[in-house]
Amino acid sequence: MVDYRVKDVSLAESGKKKIDWAEAHMPVLVSLMRKYEKTRPLAGIKVTGCLHVTKETGVLVRAIKAAGADRISWCGCNPLSTQDDVAASLAANEGIMVYASRGVTAKEYYDDIHSAMKLGPHVTIDDGADLTVEMHKAMSEQQAKKREREIEKERGYNNSGNANPVYGGTEETTTGVIRLKALNKAGKLLYPIIAVNDAETKHDFDNVYGTGQSALDGIIRATNVLLAGKNVVVAGYGHVGKGVARRASGMGANVIVTEVDSIAALKAKMDGYSVMQMVKAAEIGDVFITATGCKDVIVGKDIEKMKDGAILANAGHFNVEISIDALERQGSKKRINDSVEQYKLKSGNRVYLVGEGRLVNLAAAEGHPSEVMDMSFANQLLSVIRLAKSGGTMKPGVYNIDAAQDREIASGKLESMGVSIDSLSPAQQAYLEGFSEGT
Amino acid sequence: MVDYRVKDVSLAESGKKKIDWAEAHMPVLVSLMRKYEKTRPLAGIKVTGCLHVTKETGVLVRAIKAAGADRISWCGCNPLSTQDDVAASLAANEGIMVYASRGVTAKEYYDDIHSAMKLGPHVTIDDGADLTVEMHKAMSEQQAKKREREIEKERGYNNSGNANPVYGGTEETTTGVIRLKALNKAGKLLYPIIAVNDAETKHDFDNVYGTGQSALDGIIRATNVLLAGKNVVVAGYGHVGKGVARRASGMGANVIVTEVDSIAALKAKMDGYSVMQMVKAAEIGDVFITATGCKDVIVGKDIEKMKDGAILANAGHFNVEISIDALERQGSKKRINDSVEQYKLKSGNRVYLVGEGRLVNLAAAEGHPSEVMDMSFANQLLSVIRLAKSGGTMKPGVYNIDAAQDREIASGKLESMGVSIDSLSPAQQAYLEGFSEGT
Amino acid sequence: MVDYRVKDVSLAESGKKKIDWAEAHMPVLVSLMRKYEKTRPLAGIKVTGCLHVTKETGVLVRAIKAAGADRISWCGCNPLSTQDDVAASLAANEGIMVYASRGVTAKEYYDDIHSAMKLGPHVTIDDGADLTVEMHKAMSEQQAKKREREIEKERGYNNSGNANPVYGGTEETTTGVIRLKALNKAGKLLYPIIAVNDAETKHDFDNVYGTGQSALDGIIRATNVLLAGKNVVVAGYGHVGKGVARRASGMGANVIVTEVDSIAALKAKMDGYSVMQMVKAAEIGDVFITATGCKDVIVGKDIEKMKDGAILANAGHFNVEISIDALERQGSKKRINDSVEQYKLKSGNRVYLVGEGRLVNLAAAEGHPSEVMDMSFANQLLSVIRLAKSGGTMKPGVYNIDAAQDREIASGKLESMGVSIDSLSPAQQAYLEGFSEGT
Amino acid sequence: MVDYRVKDVSLAESGKKKIDWAEAHMPVLVSLMRKYEKTRPLAGIKVTGCLHVTKETGVLVRAIKAAGADRISWCGCNPLSTQDDVAASLAANEGIMVYASRGVTAKEYYDDIHSAMKLGPHVTIDDGADLTVEMHKAMSEQQAKKREREIEKERGYNNSGNANPVYGGTEETTTGVIRLKALNKAGKLLYPIIAVNDAETKHDFDNVYGTGQSALDGIIRATNVLLAGKNVVVAGYGHVGKGVARRASGMGANVIVTEVDSIAALKAKMDGYSVMQMVKAAEIGDVFITATGCKDVIVGKDIEKMKDGAILANAGHFNVEISIDALERQGSKKRINDSVEQYKLKSGNRVYLVGEGRLVNLAAAEGHPSEVMDMSFANQLLSVIRLAKSGGTMKPGVYNIDAAQDREIASGKLESMGVSIDSLSPAQQAYLEGFSEGT
Repeated sequence: MVDYRVKDVSLAESGKKKIDWAEAHMPVLVSLMRKYEKTRPLAGIKVTGCLHVTKETGVLVRAIKAAGADRISWCGCNPLSTQDDVAASLAANEGIMVYASRGVTAKEYYDDIHSAMKLGPHVTIDDGADLTVEMHKAMSEQQAKKREREIEKERGYNNSGNANPVYGGTEETTTGVIRLKALNKAGKLLYPIIAVNDAETKHDFDNVYGTGQSALDGIIRATNVLLAGKNVVVAGYGHVGKGVARRASGMGANVIVTEVDSIAALKAKMDGYSVMQMVKAAEIGDVFITATGCKDVIVGKDIEKMKDGAILANAGHFNVEISIDALERQGSKKRINDSVEQYKLKSGNRVYLVGEGRLVNLAAAEGHPSEVMDMSFANQLLSVIRLAKSGGTMKPGVYNIDAAQDREIASGKLESMGVSIDSLSPAQQAYLEGFSEGT
Repeated sequence: MVDYRVKDVSLAESGKKKIDWAEAHMPVLVSLMRKYEKTRPLAGIKVTGCLHVTKETGVLVRAIKAAGADRISWCGCNPLSTQDDVAASLAANEGIMVYASRGVTAKEYYDDIHSAMKLGPHVTIDDGADLTVEMHKAMSEQQAKKREREIEKERGYNNSGNANPVYGGTEETTTGVIRLKALNKAGKLLYPIIAVNDAETKHDFDNVYGTGQSALDGIIRATNVLLAGKNVVVAGYGHVGKGVARRASGMGANVIVTEVDSIAALKAKMDGYSVMQMVKAAEIGDVFITATGCKDVIVGKDIEKMKDGAILANAGHFNVEISIDALERQGSKKRINDSVEQYKLKSGNRVYLVGEGRLVNLAAAEGHPSEVMDMSFANQLLSVIRLAKSGGTMKPGVYNIDAAQDREIASGKLESMGVSIDSLSPAQQAYLEGFSEGT
Repeated sequence: MVDYRVKDVSLAESGKKKIDWAEAHMPVLVSLMRKYEKTRPLAGIKVTGCLHVTKETGVLVRAIKAAGADRISWCGCNPLSTQDDVAASLAANEGIMVYASRGVTAKEYYDDIHSAMKLGPHVTIDDGADLTVEMHKAMSEQQAKKREREIEKERGYNNSGNANPVYGGTEETTTGVIRLKALNKAGKLLYPIIAVNDAETKHDFDNVYGTGQSALDGIIRATNVLLAGKNVVVAGYGHVGKGVARRASGMGANVIVTEVDSIAALKAKMDGYSVMQMVKAAEIGDVFITATGCKDVIVGKDIEKMKDGAILANAGHFNVEISIDALERQGSKKRINDSVEQYKLKSGNRVYLVGEGRLVNLAAAEGHPSEVMDMSFANQLLSVIRLAKSGGTMKPGVYNIDAAQDREIASGKLESMGVSIDSLSPAQQAYLEGFSEGT
Repeated sequence: MVDYRVKDVSLAESGKKKIDWAEAHMPVLVSLMRKYEKTRPLAGIKVTGCLHVTKETGVLVRAIKAAGADRISWCGCNPLSTQDDVAASLAANEGIMVYASRGVTAKEYYDDIHSAMKLGPHVTIDDGADLTVEMHKAMSEQQAKKREREIEKERGYNNSGNANPVYGGTEETTTGVIRLKALNKAGKLLYPIIAVNDAETKHDFDNVYGTGQSALDGIIRATNVLLAGKNVVVAGYGHVGKGVARRASGMGANVIVTEVDSIAALKAKMDGYSVMQMVKAAEIGDVFITATGCKDVIVGKDIEKMKDGAILANAGHFNVEISIDALERQGSKKRINDSVEQYKLKSGNRVYLVGEGRLVNLAAAEGHPSEVMDMSFANQLLSVIRLAKSGGTMKPGVYNIDAAQDREIASGKLESMGVSIDSLSPAQQAYLEGFSEGT
């Protein structure tokens, strides 16, 4: 059996059931799996993934394997998001080098990434860019210290000497794409990245519909709070924020949006929400959900104004949006249940933090529903195949996925839902491409 | 320690934490508790409750105890709805004679009711009328067989001889009120019932907002299905059906309503939903939620038309709305997870039943959020006190709660939410009571 | 030709076209018309109506005529709601004694009522109870002054001597029903009133869906204001207020509700709206819509706090909800267009009153869409026939319409919309009427 | 007085009142007007506009004049959209060479464009690209026939010889931008175009919120139909289609979307709407609204399937979306009112066309509310100034507006609405620009 580190491999059967259930809800990815298990375009390719170890990821891994990948290693991309039974099944049933368990420390988290990196992948799959940044650190070191091979060996990373080159990587999140574009802008990106996140069939769907539902799901599972009649403060009105705001409103909440961008703020206002500064919203909010991709969105001066019973949760990638430091400084902490901690403020009020400020849909629920991950992961699979086919010929840079790929995935999804749509006639096509027909 | 039957009394600490959490979200009931623990209007009174053993019920029990009740016995009102840790806490920490565990058989279920009845209550609290009907059976037997005391003793029910009379009972649900009105109409009701369900602050809130959220919560916890883009079929457009339809729509579902009442159907249509017969809806639905209070709402001829992957759940009181028999006749059954069973139909399609067709918000989630139970249970407490004060002077019949009580509870709730409203001036009051001012 | 008073009888053709258009959208009323033109149950009956002279009312008048009514007189029930071309058509094409024009003074308004009353009706149809109250004044006078026939003749009312008795009347509005119940409670009601308003197919539909759409329609026609992003304050959360709030929210407004009833206020809050006192809402509202049925809902202390540009409109029956006096006291008035007046406040801010504070859907738009009036007026026609058949045997009192009539009208409406619904099987019927089947 | 062609110049006073009203609702444009009337950046510049002659356009014209423009000519961009009183006011009160009236023939329409072109503008403002295309025809002719000056003079266009060059133009609509990009792609664009439409503060607002409200407004004014419970078919799910679908749903309609793009179709489905082919939707739709920018969206095979009473309207730029030919071929036509024609189909069913298939918000209502045009026209004014400042140095091509301009306009709008938002701290800014901070 391959090398792995999971919490309890005996959970494999439960994990398999979950992956099977997800597979039954991911028709687009499954149809690609059926197609590529014949042609095996990933034959000879090593793939390392750093992506929430959930049942849907299990299906992606199965698909990569079916497409012929030589070997696959995997690690989590968030300390609280691993489903231990799924990890067990990946190790025991799928033969994946998986290094992940729920509730790791920061050190363990990075150790797992480094363990997965040891595979020396041709292609990386990332979610938040932690793996890619670690890969870059290792590669930079290599370049800097070509002669100091000892250190490198210690670290166990072998993308050197006779190791294969990295053909490229993919990135699943807005946060990761922003980080990698910054890396590229700084001239430090060492291999091409396909921004899967920027596919319309990804960010316009899982960020909006997936997080919209699952972030609230996480909060409800953690607190069983009634959303109807509550003042729900959503920080950030990007794709995730819009999705969360719409669903919170759909559950009967009175939604307040905070923003730093005037255009996004105006859209929120026109969509019927209240818009105000966080420091004002802090006084009236019952539930706070951050979705900005930025840090320090809720800080001490906000927290100290909060009402007794306020609930704080984060739907953004990293646990930097709500200042945990500020909460800790306010006063005593007490665990209410697996997903909720109570902080007693200096004002005497109690506020509740869900999932330690980590992304609430994974920390307190099951992450995005399979139906949306279906499209994201179809994009992932096709992007991995594209990188594999490139054979290392793509230059460093952040690449978009093809519009045609996007449309094909959407078409496959519609078909699986039993929906037929119209198509343009040649005359209509010509009309749209012309300019002569006017009033 | 009192007599009890729970699954595992060592879960008491977890149950206590949950009840504490609920208590923090039930300000109206808590303010009544604070008030009546001084005057103890239930001193000397024995109370038997048959009501879902959840954390909110735990708070109600605490309130009844605080109001001075002599002794309290309790049983579940649904085989799948008991939270075992809460039951443990009621036994261990609150000294309640509690007879309930999750997943009982029908026989165990009725045994528990009979165990609770042994207390010989002055006041009963019921949810679905099972306790009240059993009480009536026992009382009828007594009357019929005054001389055959042996049988009675066997049964263990002692509301006879020198036992206290039953002052009355309360009923929490639409289903129960319908049953008890039928009993009354048949001339067989033996003691007064206060229809707590019919309080506006009850059925207009927990049926609508509570079940609306929690029924979907149960389905999502059980299946993690994405509601956006799904065809969700809601059977019944009463208070519960409206709530479920609104929330499903708020989550992005395309809602289809089925009804037998033309006025309700027309409202559903005007509210923007599709309305059709179940047999038609069966062909296109992705998720089915029954909320009618009637039996055989989804039967064989519907089930055999369903799409592969269809999900069935019930939000009504009894597990009679979806015909389990019809499912069983279709074919093989397989458990997917704790809350979901798969049925393979003769068509080859697979349909999934959530929570064995029992009310999904309790079978697969935590029931109504505390915030709405706050009002229902404030009505319960006040109704129990009213019956206690009556000392047995109220005649058999189904009674409404006072409009003033309703308004007071609503005012208390608004206050707890920090909401101030207007009041009528004397001139406005006079205007509304007059007829002379016209155009 | 019959006696009448309209603005310009040459507009009859335009009015006829409008009535024809309405008739094409009132399938339930038309099917009753087709039925009763054969049996003519109103043969020999005189009917006086006091109801907004709109195209839909035109269809009701045609239906009453088709059902055999001997003679019909009609007047408006609001100084600003008459559509002059419809009035012209009623006079010229339908032979109705119609006394109505848009923009009458209070004196002209009552003169028109008295003119219509001269017919000496067997049955009255009312909307707001102005006609009924005037009838009662005249009847009281008659009783008081049986011998002073001169005065009576002067007034021209002839329901005396050999005149027919009044068999009864109908009432279309919540406001009117409240007034007439007050009259009845005071022991002064002289003939039976059927509360058409209280039919579910009336108040649950035209108050909610009809006014919801048409009140906003009136405001938009008058001001062309964008509702998205506006703070819309809805005073009152009864049927009308709910409808207006839901539609305003559906147009992207941020809705604030004011109420005097705690239960209604709590519902508004749970429905996701902000709830506050009017004096607070006054500071932030962009558009104010009153829908309470009460007077002095927006008064001086509110108005003086309003923002520059605030728009005021009333959706309640009478123009007493917004204090016109308070506006006049604030300062100078200027007409902006046919439907809008600007008031310059002492603060320098300008506020805009739509339709002189009269019900905005009729003053600035066309009233309820035909589709909802279809059901209201089907109820009216059936109620008039019921009163005619009674032959004067019904005692004074406020009567409800039959539940069966309600359901039949709803069924007819569904059928006209192509909607089929389920029906209860005998076994289901028995289940609902029984009490023995429990868990 | 300047040369002009309007329907009735005596309507000027009414038009002025309307423009004043609009001005009171366009705070961003007004603040720019206040700013530029001091610096007069358009001094010496001639501007020709081809844009719906509405009250909001009146404010834009005032602003261009205030910014110092030498002379201004104007024509309508749609045969049915001119408000004749506004045109009169532009001629009489503002001294604009305006050539526009409501209800012109196609020939008159183009004559008006040619009249306006005679000014020989430095800058053109366009809405749908009809003016720009005519300008290009004339300019091409000039180039081709430099020596045949006679013909040119006949046409009256003088952008030649000593005439000024065209510095550039702006374009307001999606349709126009598509046409002009096609022109550019064909290598035939002769001067730079600023795609005002593509500003986020334009197309994300007036296309969505403006058309969403005003298209429904047009249909309601024309038909007074109740939207609640209707099946509303929206063709196209771009910005306009989304806005219309959302508002129709907000009014209680059951929305069906048709699309040719799979991604857009999937979004519509995930947003909870039904999605199907037009030929299927045709059978069940009550109201049809086209919003595609393409031609032949509703054609004969669709129309012949429609239900009796179906209503057809277009919200796209040109009247080509609903095939008028196909309607005419079906059978007899009859005018119902100013905005509605009835077509009797061969099936015997009647369908109703609103506003002759021209954009319904302008043909049957007043176009976008002032509040959204405020931002579009602020972009227009700033773009005209940019072109004026360029002095002809910008090369032909389709230009975007500046992101900074977009954000500034949004900020101004928020300020006018009394909304304050957060801003990024330097540390947050650095975080967003960095890549090193991970998990």
